[in-house]
This record gives sequence, C-alpha cells and structure tokens, in this order.
Amino acid sequence: MGNNKELTSVSKATIGRLPAYHRYLKEKQAQGERTIASTAIAEDLHLNAVQVRKDLSLISTTAGKPKRGFDVDELIADIDRFLGYDNVSDAVLVGAGGLGSALAGYGGFKNYGLNIVAAFDADPSRIGRTVGGVHVFDARETASLVRRLNVRIGILAVPKEAAQGAADALVAGGVRAIWNFAPVHLSLPENIAVKNEDMAASLAILSKRLAEILSHEK
Amino acid sequence: MGNNKELTSVSKATIGRLPAYHRYLKEKQAQGERTIASTAIAEDLHLNAVQVRKDLSLISTTAGKPKRGFDVDELIADIDRFLGYDNVSDAVLVGAGGLGSALAGYGGFKNYGLNIVAAFDADPSRIGRTVGGVHVFDARETASLVRRLNVRIGILAVPKEAAQGAADALVAGGVRAIWNFAPVHLSLPENIAVKNEDMAASLAILSKRLAEILSHEK
Repeated sequence: MGNNKELTSVSKATIGRLPAYHRYLKEKQAQGERTIASTAIAEDLHLNAVQVRKDLSLISTTAGKPKRGFDVDELIADIDRFLGYDNVSDAVLVGAGGLGSALAGYGGFKNYGLNIVAAFDADPSRIGRTVGGVHVFDARETASLVRRLNVRIGILAVPKEAAQGAADALVAGGVRAIWNFAPVHLSLPENIAVKNEDMAASLAILSKRLAEILSHEK
Repeated sequence: MGNNKELTSVSKATIGRLPAYHRYLKEKQAQGERTIASTAIAEDLHLNAVQVRKDLSLISTTAGKPKRGFDVDELIADIDRFLGYDNVSDAVLVGAGGLGSALAGYGGFKNYGLNIVAAFDADPSRIGRTVGGVHVFDARETASLVRRLNVRIGILAVPKEAAQGAADALVAGGVRAIWNFAPVHLSLPENIAVKNEDMAASLAILSKRLAEILSHEK
C-alpha cells in the first residue's frame, strides 16, 4: 500500500481525488485513448489544471510530456500502485441490515482494493444468512473470527447504540482501520485509523447550499 | 433554512460539525443536563475547545456564560433553527436498489429535516413496490411527479451509467439540490447544489491511513 514517504508528502485532498482520476482514466482507456493532457482531465472533471498537474506529478513515476501529456496506461498503474488497488485488502462488515447489505452487495469495492470476507450481526434472524455473497456470523464471534482471518479493516454499519461495542470487538480481534457508518464518535486507541461517514454532516452542508441558492433568487 | 448572511459567515467545516453537536446535546438533554461547558463538549467529541466555542458562538443567539456554560435546550433550538431541522424539507429518491432502499429505510433523516416522499426506479420489478415506507414510481415519471410534488431535493442512488439521465430528470422537474451517491461527476447548471458522497475517496483515505500506521510499526 505504498510507503511512509509517499504518505507524508501527499495531502488527504489529493488522495481523495485519486479515485476520480482513476475512474476517468479507466473510461478513457476503454475508449482507446493512449495519452491524455492534464488540461483535458481538469476540464472534464471540473478541477483546476494546476491542481491536476500537481496531484498527478506527486504519484506518477513518469512525468507528463509537455506536448503529448500523460500515458493513460502508466498513470492508471501508478494510481493502482499508490492506492494499493493492485493489492486487495480483506475486510469484515459488522451490521447486516439495510446499509450493511447494500455495502456487502456493492461489487465496486473490489475495484478499490477492498474484499469483504465475512459479516457479523447480533440479530438471530440474520445469522447464518448471506448478504451480497457474504456469510453473516454471530456478532459474538467477531473478535475471534477476525483474529483467525487476520483481517485489518472493519466496516461498521450498526445502529449507533451498538457501534462502540462492535468497534471494541473489531479492535480486540486485531482490526487497525475502521470505516464507521454509525452516527457516533468512537473512542478508540490512538493507533487505529478511523474514517467516519457522517451522512448528517453531508446533508447539513447540502441543505445550507440549497438555502443559499434559493435566497439569491428571492 | 436560515438567511444568506448566516451562510456567508459560517464555514462548511463548522456546518459539518453542527450535526455532531446536535446529537451530543440531545443525549445530554435526555440525561437531564441543563447547562454544559464548551470544554466538556470539546473533550467528549475530541475537538479543540477554542474551535467548539467559535462554532457555537456563530450560531448561538445567547453566548455561553463563563461560569455556567451554554444552556442545553437553547443551544439545541439554535442548531435546529440554523440547520432547518424545525422546517422539514421533502425529497425524492431515484434508485430503489440496495443503497436506495437503505436510505429510504433510514428513519434518522427526518430528525435532520429530510422527508423522502417518493422513490423512482427504471426496473419494472421494483415499480409499484414500497421501500422503507416509500412508494416506488416509474423512473419515466420523475420530472412530472417532482414538479407536481414541488420537491426541491433529490437523492441519487442509481448505477453510474444512469446517474446523469436521472439528474437531468430531477432538474427538469424543478429539483435544486442533489445528494449524489453515484460515483460519477454530474454536469449540472450552476444554480444546482450538489453534494457528492464519494465512497471510493473515503476508502482511499482510510487505506492510506492504515498503511501509515502499519509502516510505523515495522
């Protein structure tokens, strides 16, 4: 998944844009394009051209040529390598309800280097079933099974009341990164990576933008 | 949903933190707390105390008292008013598959001022059914029904191939804000608010943090 030198020199904002470049380049590759100019990428993705050039120069092993632009295949390989897409990581899912099932069934994660190998739920009616091709185990087995499977990434899709307990079980089993879809702040050791998906925060930002647009029209 | 003066003086980062304050204050209210110090909020939510004080002073009508702190009830009412939680907006959902059903079934959005009144899908096997208590209409009726319902917010939970067409139909019906869960950049008029939920970007950031943590331990 890259080395530490790369991490400290590339910002979170750049990393966040890489999947969009990747998707875009894959489309161009499928259309038979061999090279692409950073200005074209910037225009199509509605980004600043200077920013695009800077982002790509940080992760690319071969700089874009002034006249010809970037080699599409090479650039895809660079992003694959940088984001670890060529090195799929196993993950477990806790919570096999509506959202958890949707996440398990979303085949796209494999393209992004994530492979969900097991799911857990506390609800007896869900245990033993399959969601999105993933077997649902008893939540009480989380720590022991995670340890046995040697999994480092856990996805939390449980109600907020159950989130801290589920996170503790994941950490007890050896998980080091938690993707948290529960609307709650988790108390975790310093050396655990957490990415919160705060839908309420997103919605608040969207609602405010809408209010701004509508107020300008009055 | 507040006025324009408020919007220009409050950053996106602050707006994004308000739902977390709101959840926290509701918990404290339920526990019978009447007042709370900004330092306590900061500690419990793992935020900087200066930041918390600044965030709350921007939206609070009554500043916190140096000795007693903020009035919990008043602060909740201030956030409700600022984020429009006291003024629920109707929304439509396009895409009633796994993710769409999960979103429709997530009762929590009502607490955040969002009420999903109708869903649309192009799949005949889904049309006429109900997801999360919401009726699924034929996607071809999107523009006309959105116009009739006078809805301003659309949620896109369709595959990426269908996203642009679905967004166009929403805009044709009068939608002014789109919450986009499809992994694609939408081409939309300037006066349409968009909030993209880019799961791939989130996952890339989490994977990189995990790689950093693991590399430090080598």
